[in-house]
Amino acid sequence: MANSKSLMLFSGRGYPDLAAEVADHLGITVTPEDAYEFANGEIFVRYKESARGSDAFVIQSCGEGINTWVMETLIMIDALKRASAKRISVVLPFYPYARQDKKHRGREPISARLIADLLKTAGAHRLMCVDLHTDQIQGFFDGPVDHLMAAPLLTDYILKQYGADHLTVVSPDSGRVRTAERWADRLGGTPLAFIHKTRDPLKPNQVVANRVVGEVGGRTCIIVDDMIDTGGTIASATRAVVEAGAKQVIVAATHGVLSDPAAERLSNCGLTEVVLTNTLPIPQNHRFPKLTVLSIAPMLARAIHEVFEDGSVTSLFES
Amino acid sequence: MANSKSLMLFSGRGYPDLAAEVADHLGITVTPEDAYEFANGEIFVRYKESARGSDAFVIQSCGEGINTWVMETLIMIDALKRASAKRISVVLPFYPYARQDKKHRGREPISARLIADLLKTAGAHRLMCVDLHTDQIQGFFDGPVDHLMAAPLLTDYILKQYGADHLTVVSPDSGRVRTAERWADRLGGTPLAFIHKTRDPLKPNQVVANRVVGEVGGRTCIIVDDMIDTGGTIASATRAVVEAGAKQVIVAATHGVLSDPAAERLSNCGLTEVVLTNTLPIPQNHRFPKLTVLSIAPMLARAIHEVFEDGSVTSLFES
Amino acid sequence: MANSKSLMLFSGRGYPDLAAEVADHLGITVTPEDAYEFANGEIFVRYKESARGSDAFVIQSCGEGINTWVMETLIMIDALKRASAKRISVVLPFYPYARQDKKHRGREPISARLIADLLKTAGAHRLMCVDLHTDQIQGFFDGPVDHLMAAPLLTDYILKQYGADHLTVVSPDSGRVRTAERWADRLGGTPLAFIHKTRDPLKPNQVVANRVVGEVGGRTCIIVDDMIDTGGTIASATRAVVEAGAKQVIVAATHGVLSDPAAERLSNCGLTEVVLTNTLPIPQNHRFPKLTVLSIAPMLARAIHEVFEDGSVTSLFES
Amino acid sequence: MANSKSLMLFSGRGYPDLAAEVADHLGITVTPEDAYEFANGEIFVRYKESARGSDAFVIQSCGEGINTWVMETLIMIDALKRASAKRISVVLPFYPYARQDKKHRGREPISARLIADLLKTAGAHRLMCVDLHTDQIQGFFDGPVDHLMAAPLLTDYILKQYGADHLTVVSPDSGRVRTAERWADRLGGTPLAFIHKTRDPLKPNQVVANRVVGEVGGRTCIIVDDMIDTGGTIASATRAVVEAGAKQVIVAATHGVLSDPAAERLSNCGLTEVVLTNTLPIPQNHRFPKLTVLSIAPMLARAIHEVFEDGSVTSLFES
Amino acid sequence: MANSKSLMLFSGRGYPDLAAEVADHLGITVTPEDAYEFANGEIFVRYKESARGSDAFVIQSCGEGINTWVMETLIMIDALKRASAKRISVVLPFYPYARQDKKHRGREPISARLIADLLKTAGAHRLMCVDLHTDQIQGFFDGPVDHLMAAPLLTDYILKQYGADHLTVVSPDSGRVRTAERWADRLGGTPLAFIHKTRDPLKPNQVVANRVVGEVGGRTCIIVDDMIDTGGTIASATRAVVEAGAKQVIVAATHGVLSDPAAERLSNCGLTEVVLTNTLPIPQNHRFPKLTVLSIAPMLARAIHEVFEDGSVTSLFES
Amino acid sequence: MANSKSLMLFSGRGYPDLAAEVADHLGITVTPEDAYEFANGEIFVRYKESARGSDAFVIQSCGEGINTWVMETLIMIDALKRASAKRISVVLPFYPYARQDKKHRGREPISARLIADLLKTAGAHRLMCVDLHTDQIQGFFDGPVDHLMAAPLLTDYILKQYGADHLTVVSPDSGRVRTAERWADRLGGTPLAFIHKTRDPLKPNQVVANRVVGEVGGRTCIIVDDMIDTGGTIASATRAVVEAGAKQVIVAATHGVLSDPAAERLSNCGLTEVVLTNTLPIPQNHRFPKLTVLSIAPMLARAIHEVFEDGSVTSLFES
Repeated sequence: MANSKSLMLFSGRGYPDLAAEVADHLGITVTPEDAYEFANGEIFVRYKESARGSDAFVIQSCGEGINTWVMETLIMIDALKRASAKRISVVLPFYPYARQDKKHRGREPISARLIADLLKTAGAHRLMCVDLHTDQIQGFFDGPVDHLMAAPLLTDYILKQYGADHLTVVSPDSGRVRTAERWADRLGGTPLAFIHKTRDPLKPNQVVANRVVGEVGGRTCIIVDDMIDTGGTIASATRAVVEAGAKQVIVAATHGVLSDPAAERLSNCGLTEVVLTNTLPIPQNHRFPKLTVLSIAPMLARAIHEVFEDGSVTSLFES
Repeated sequence: MANSKSLMLFSGRGYPDLAAEVADHLGITVTPEDAYEFANGEIFVRYKESARGSDAFVIQSCGEGINTWVMETLIMIDALKRASAKRISVVLPFYPYARQDKKHRGREPISARLIADLLKTAGAHRLMCVDLHTDQIQGFFDGPVDHLMAAPLLTDYILKQYGADHLTVVSPDSGRVRTAERWADRLGGTPLAFIHKTRDPLKPNQVVANRVVGEVGGRTCIIVDDMIDTGGTIASATRAVVEAGAKQVIVAATHGVLSDPAAERLSNCGLTEVVLTNTLPIPQNHRFPKLTVLSIAPMLARAIHEVFEDGSVTSLFES
Repeated sequence: MANSKSLMLFSGRGYPDLAAEVADHLGITVTPEDAYEFANGEIFVRYKESARGSDAFVIQSCGEGINTWVMETLIMIDALKRASAKRISVVLPFYPYARQDKKHRGREPISARLIADLLKTAGAHRLMCVDLHTDQIQGFFDGPVDHLMAAPLLTDYILKQYGADHLTVVSPDSGRVRTAERWADRLGGTPLAFIHKTRDPLKPNQVVANRVVGEVGGRTCIIVDDMIDTGGTIASATRAVVEAGAKQVIVAATHGVLSDPAAERLSNCGLTEVVLTNTLPIPQNHRFPKLTVLSIAPMLARAIHEVFEDGSVTSLFES
Repeated sequence: MANSKSLMLFSGRGYPDLAAEVADHLGITVTPEDAYEFANGEIFVRYKESARGSDAFVIQSCGEGINTWVMETLIMIDALKRASAKRISVVLPFYPYARQDKKHRGREPISARLIADLLKTAGAHRLMCVDLHTDQIQGFFDGPVDHLMAAPLLTDYILKQYGADHLTVVSPDSGRVRTAERWADRLGGTPLAFIHKTRDPLKPNQVVANRVVGEVGGRTCIIVDDMIDTGGTIASATRAVVEAGAKQVIVAATHGVLSDPAAERLSNCGLTEVVLTNTLPIPQNHRFPKLTVLSIAPMLARAIHEVFEDGSVTSLFES
Repeated sequence: MANSKSLMLFSGRGYPDLAAEVADHLGITVTPEDAYEFANGEIFVRYKESARGSDAFVIQSCGEGINTWVMETLIMIDALKRASAKRISVVLPFYPYARQDKKHRGREPISARLIADLLKTAGAHRLMCVDLHTDQIQGFFDGPVDHLMAAPLLTDYILKQYGADHLTVVSPDSGRVRTAERWADRLGGTPLAFIHKTRDPLKPNQVVANRVVGEVGGRTCIIVDDMIDTGGTIASATRAVVEAGAKQVIVAATHGVLSDPAAERLSNCGLTEVVLTNTLPIPQNHRFPKLTVLSIAPMLARAIHEVFEDGSVTSLFES
Repeated sequence: MANSKSLMLFSGRGYPDLAAEVADHLGITVTPEDAYEFANGEIFVRYKESARGSDAFVIQSCGEGINTWVMETLIMIDALKRASAKRISVVLPFYPYARQDKKHRGREPISARLIADLLKTAGAHRLMCVDLHTDQIQGFFDGPVDHLMAAPLLTDYILKQYGADHLTVVSPDSGRVRTAERWADRLGGTPLAFIHKTRDPLKPNQVVANRVVGEVGGRTCIIVDDMIDTGGTIASATRAVVEAGAKQVIVAATHGVLSDPAAERLSNCGLTEVVLTNTLPIPQNHRFPKLTVLSIAPMLARAIHEVFEDGSVTSLFES
């Protein structure tokens, strides 16, 4: 008997529109399921079609209500494992708990590693993610991780909108200067700057000033980050850069977490535009006029297709 | 060097009052911690005291917001594992997802097993629970499980309030008659009854009647269950028993999940009293006049003490 | 190269006739093997054909000499794993040690979970079983379990033999009333009854009476159970039901363990017919005139076929 | 609190007398238990005393009915694991399935490795064995193995009975010449011989002659082996050595499996004495006049004592 | 019996002097062992004293011949595991393969995670390391990691030698600005700078200039890094900073890998002093006049002592 | 979609010529890769082609610099696992650390088991080896092991060169007489002899004489071993056999480790010819006139082909 395999796409309830968009690009439909919460919040999932022998992709965006979506993902994987799916790939465009990727001090968890182990325990064979908070998170999962980069999508947009001249890439803090450097290369070799948060030596952990290190005067500054959560860091970075004489400020990030009061802060800090992707759902009330959202779905669809066909994801996204 | 060990109690945020009550009984204090949620809902936990080498007990009640509490429990265990706790026992008075302990139909998860595996993966060495939905859940965890029974607490109360005469124990459905039988024995050999849900042969899964099987006329009926969630089953069982001539109805259960509209249903179905334990927090707005809540804390404290001292939990709770 | 896969069936020595019957239905032959015991009882197995890359099904019935058959199953799996079988599914029509699925009291094993772990350790990827003693045993195995139900086979027979009128389904004890309820639904909505074993309050664990709860007078009573071992429970249930006025008693169960003195007890307790399946071999000296044995082989063959073809087992056996 | 630990000894039913003898030497008693088989052969075990926190040693001799004793051992370990024993050491004086320690040909199991994995899965932390069939079996277990040697016991006896002069150590086949060499050293540097089984080149696997290689004429030949099963190899080796002019033949082995017709064969092949230890029970009907059985219990007791006290087992048994 | 435990220190052959120094501080001696290589390079290790029940610390510095030392570490752990050590902590002052902590491009290994898994597989329970290349490596190990920081040692020395005035902390590349920021805080709130490696947009990956971003003119620049390997990055950073007008340049790093031609490069690039610790052995021919080496041994000894005593390592090294 | 799979061969740097020869026989090419060592000896590997979904074979010969090659093998496996290879088979013609397959005394490692576990941890699914030092090493790996035998290759050569008459097979020590016996059978039923190393009873472990046991006078003696390392055992065995009157001595072994001073010793001990295979590279300066090296590549290629095609390796190499 010839051993054919079938690609099946399963969607968590965290952001069904993204899954539907990915399915469209793949020319398939999301597998129908019953998924709901019991009165006490326990999640129930049941697939309406046989997943036996399938090459299953579970796509979930862990936005608001993040713990619910993590649990739902684990439960969906368990159901697929017990339903004899042949291979289970979990597509988490935004990796939850990515910021807790180390012990900052003693007696803390490393929740990003924990998440990887939970996914493995539930039955995940492989992961696909976009712009992990740190690249090392790849190593937290004991198996293949397809790590996609939104940078081409974002830089193409910026170059089209603002041209390549007079740009300076700015890291909003000292921890992401490397990322900013990669952007500078990609944008054609721009200068680089970052915000140095100086602290009061007498009061540890208390930031007293945001000092811009690097030349930003008269430049179009691109502040880049992997995610925007409450927008505090970005807003104060924008202000510092503007005070230092920047001509205008564009903010680019992959993940729009946009917890309150992000919309307000970003609207009022003096920036020109915020460019994000839709790895996470951005509800209407979190949107604001200066916000542009690019769709990550075509990239996810291409990567899923290559994984299914045993094609090279590396060749797709490198250079 | 003599190898001394220390008992430390850690509490999740699901029900800190219960943990504090348990600590009181043990004559210790709950270890202080920082625990909160970031703007996007990700949980952070950090202990304020060294847990190195400790015999750590993590107590968590998974009531409303259940997925958050499950995640918090896992994160707390991870933090303890990485902080070199010697042994990690997880005290879950109410085991989450216990009702999904099997595939009712194809393509479903077995979430109760999944929970056990997640706890193990995070680093739990042992579990302590009260009245698991089915006893087999003990076997889902790969390690020791101390399975405590609230029945002595509940039956003592009932005997004191209502005496031993003219009692009939009633199972609210066909699946818990064995449990009811054990109660009948414990109450001195009472008669037994159960509610037979008859279905329309032409419309599967549609219950058409609640038939009382067994004699209840003129009796004080004790309807027993492991948990009360929305109260639907209990309320209709109460009505059926009353219609069948019962003198009065007492409902006894271990876990008061009490999701809406439980309080209303139970208040209005004709029962005399509902007796629960506090394995789960019962917020003020879910309480009602006929509700009695007995504290499980002394039992948990005794069991934790015995586990720490390598005493026999079996001898404590049998007989 | 096209990746074809091949279905291969391997049979333990516990009940080769059943394996042969299954193979017949599948249109294949059982793979020949050398299997015997050394002088000191150690089992040796060697397959006579290459199993490399095969989709291997190991079928074993754990009847008399149960520990030998369990060990043989484990050894057969090990040999297949080391012989590079691609997937190993273990078909245990009767799951051994299913009754030890929980700790009844402290310091007991949970042997049913142990069996699942041993199978996994040896190299089993999936299980197929018929009517597990409790559904939760599915959750003991860390992988897919195809759980087949003999109820359609048995109820079809009973309806053909006895018609649908005047039936009452009876659970022989308080623990299987739910199962009886499912039978009642399947037989068209019959009444339900069960046997309440009352105990002497002064002498715990001593049953003093088998009280019939529910109406059985003048009815054709179908006593249903998952297995019949020594027949004691069934015989006393039969007597209680007859004394309570039943017209006739039919006993239906999936697994015919039939340890001594089952044949004698069942022959003499007043029942009309015992209907079993052949998940276990029933040797001639354990048979008796009122015994009917239905073959489970067609159902196993269909399920194996669907698993091999990645078809839906759920759709086969539901409704 | 000071962390005291307690040594507890648990005995399988394979050879309770050996366990009792070991307990005597340790000055303790075997922990009482309920252990029996259900009608269908399933084993049940329950300990009558709390094992919580204990340093548990499970002693089992896998003689006749070997698969039953293997299963019982696994079940006993599971019960101890779930009863919170702190450490579980399994004492198997005779390691079951040791002869299947490699694939002799394709598609065979490696049952000796499987046994090690099953013990680990059930919950064993460490093993203690006497004279493993091959030393490599130590490496099959993922944990500490205390490998005791009966040679000092056996050679002391032989030297006392027969003196050190005119001895030749003989290996009964080509596979145990190394062991024989170690005996020759220990007996003061005796000559060495072995039996070369020559095969018919036209009929593979058919032994045509037992050729003695080495000088045995006029010598007291000590044939050494790790175990005697049916006695065939030993009997024909004895005959070959006698024909080659040996003065007398003494057979020494650690494990007396003695399956039929060992007693008869050994009685009639011309040897002077067979010396064994009691790692396995030797029932009265398998004994014969020329048989001497030395007790291994003192050695096991000393080793258990050292393991419990964290003493050095190496120093006890080396040199 | 009171359960005492003993601290034992085992040393790999990578840097025995460091182990001896640590042992001195602890007031113990390194456990004697036989350790050598067979003619074909296979490593053999045997401990000369019983490690049974010990709290074992294996200290190894993976300098030149790094793969040999990694293998030796794994073999030493295996020997301890099989010798019944109670707990095995591996002290790797320099974590090998730390720089391969992510896939830089497709089809690469994540060797830093692999090392963590190999250590775990061999039997390590816990790790102790100094200044991991990235903090996330903590999360690669499934167990407790004591992550020590050499910064207090190094900054104390620098403050004593150079005072706190006119300092600027410089990151030698864009990836370690966060670390530099932490140093700036610790040194009392100094300014911050980093070297921006600009690339030729036409020739990717080709660095065309080292641009200093931040103010360094007239300052005493402290270039900080976690390790110095061939010294190329440090030497060119020094030159860039000097050209940008720095008064003098001090280089501080934890790990002195110092592969050729580090000594020559560092001697001739214009820096004033290089301060390192001895986490790795620095052979005489790799030393040079401007090099200062501070001993990490007191810090390791204190941490080992705290781990053994279940004290708080966090409190020792924080603030 | 049809599920095709592709065979890919990856070569470590231990012996690329052998891999190339195997590839030639398979009609494929070795997958190109970047593999080198960083300045401090850390190995880096990156494949230049996508391995996604491939049936990957990693071939590595662990000759001189053995620990480097072991680490490289592990890193290559890790890279393949993370690159989504479907199945990873590791071809180690010479299994490293095979001689440490047991604890010879207490407190030693079992490095051969450790190697198996490291390979598994890195991600190896299966192994292929030639002439393991002991057959039991197959059981150290938890998965399929294809164990190839070089004996047919070697004996064919010997029969062609020296004919079948007047041969005696000689084991160079007491531990490999069984292997010699298998050779004797294969060569048509020759006599057998071995070298008995006698020890001084007063000085343990000191060999005082090499005594030939068995008839060798006037015979062409074939000394057989699995590997030749420094040649000491073989040279002294040759001398003993020559002194005992052998006509000529041929040495045959699978693995030519040939550490110094093997070439010199073998050249000067009086043997006629040494026949080896090229499981390990034999550099020019380790070769000598009497040395014949047969290629193992055709056998490896055939076995890889059969494994890929799910053919029977057993049938290829048996008989």
